[in-house]
Amino acid sequence: MKIPEGIKFDDQGLMVAIAQDVENGEVLMQAFMNEEALRLSLETGVAHYYSRSRKKLWKKGESSGHVQQVKEVRLDCDLDAVILKVHQIGGACHTGFRSCFYRVVNPDGSLREEGQKVFNPGQVYKK
Amino acid sequence: MKIPEGIKFDDQGLMVAIAQDVENGEVLMQAFMNEEALRLSLETGVAHYYSRSRKKLWKKGESSGHVQQVKEVRLDCDLDAVILKVHQIGGACHTGFRSCFYRVVNPDGSLREEGQKVFNPGQVYKK
Repeated sequence: MKIPEGIKFDDQGLMVAIAQDVENGEVLMQAFMNEEALRLSLETGVAHYYSRSRKKLWKKGESSGHVQQVKEVRLDCDLDAVILKVHQIGGACHTGFRSCFYRVVNPDGSLREEGQKVFNPGQVYKK
Repeated sequence: MKIPEGIKFDDQGLMVAIAQDVENGEVLMQAFMNEEALRLSLETGVAHYYSRSRKKLWKKGESSGHVQQVKEVRLDCDLDAVILKVHQIGGACHTGFRSCFYRVVNPDGSLREEGQKVFNPGQVYKK
């Protein structure tokens, strides 16, 4: 898949990326992409992101094997945010949950865990 | 709903916010929130955002009437991104589409529109 024209990256050269489960619509994670990450995601069909903390390109699942196969790519009205509809191998979250959004806010501001735990991070990241 | 502890805002005081249709899981829009926008969204039950271009707090639907009633709030593993599961009145996008993510990338990099048009922006924003 080729990179569309007119995509807007912010003053740090990044755009917001959202990975959504193509099968059930669950939002799996939110990350950022620079132009190279977007290009690689489209060209290879496997999600790549840009890590703001590590300041480097990052192939999702590189160490865990939990890659995201890109099935559809959507852009928003401003062309500055992208949704990847993906087939997620394993889980998206490094904590072992399928989605990074596994915490729900209670009325009193406390958080409860509500999500599907799909792997044991101690085993997956032991290398 | 009270604001949870430990939320991380970036160096501009913002976090990524994703509005998702509570009924069918469609991602409606992506925007940013500062602490006040998050607090107001939780306290009032109606989505508020922070506009980076206009540099001001923004109640979604203020001029259009297309407000978002917050039904559930989820945080990600890093506590720096939030999903609002909302009941969307009208459409989320100023173009008249229900979702801002109405453009799908074709294999050749061109874009096709694929979404539900729910209002005429010329009528809604004529005031």
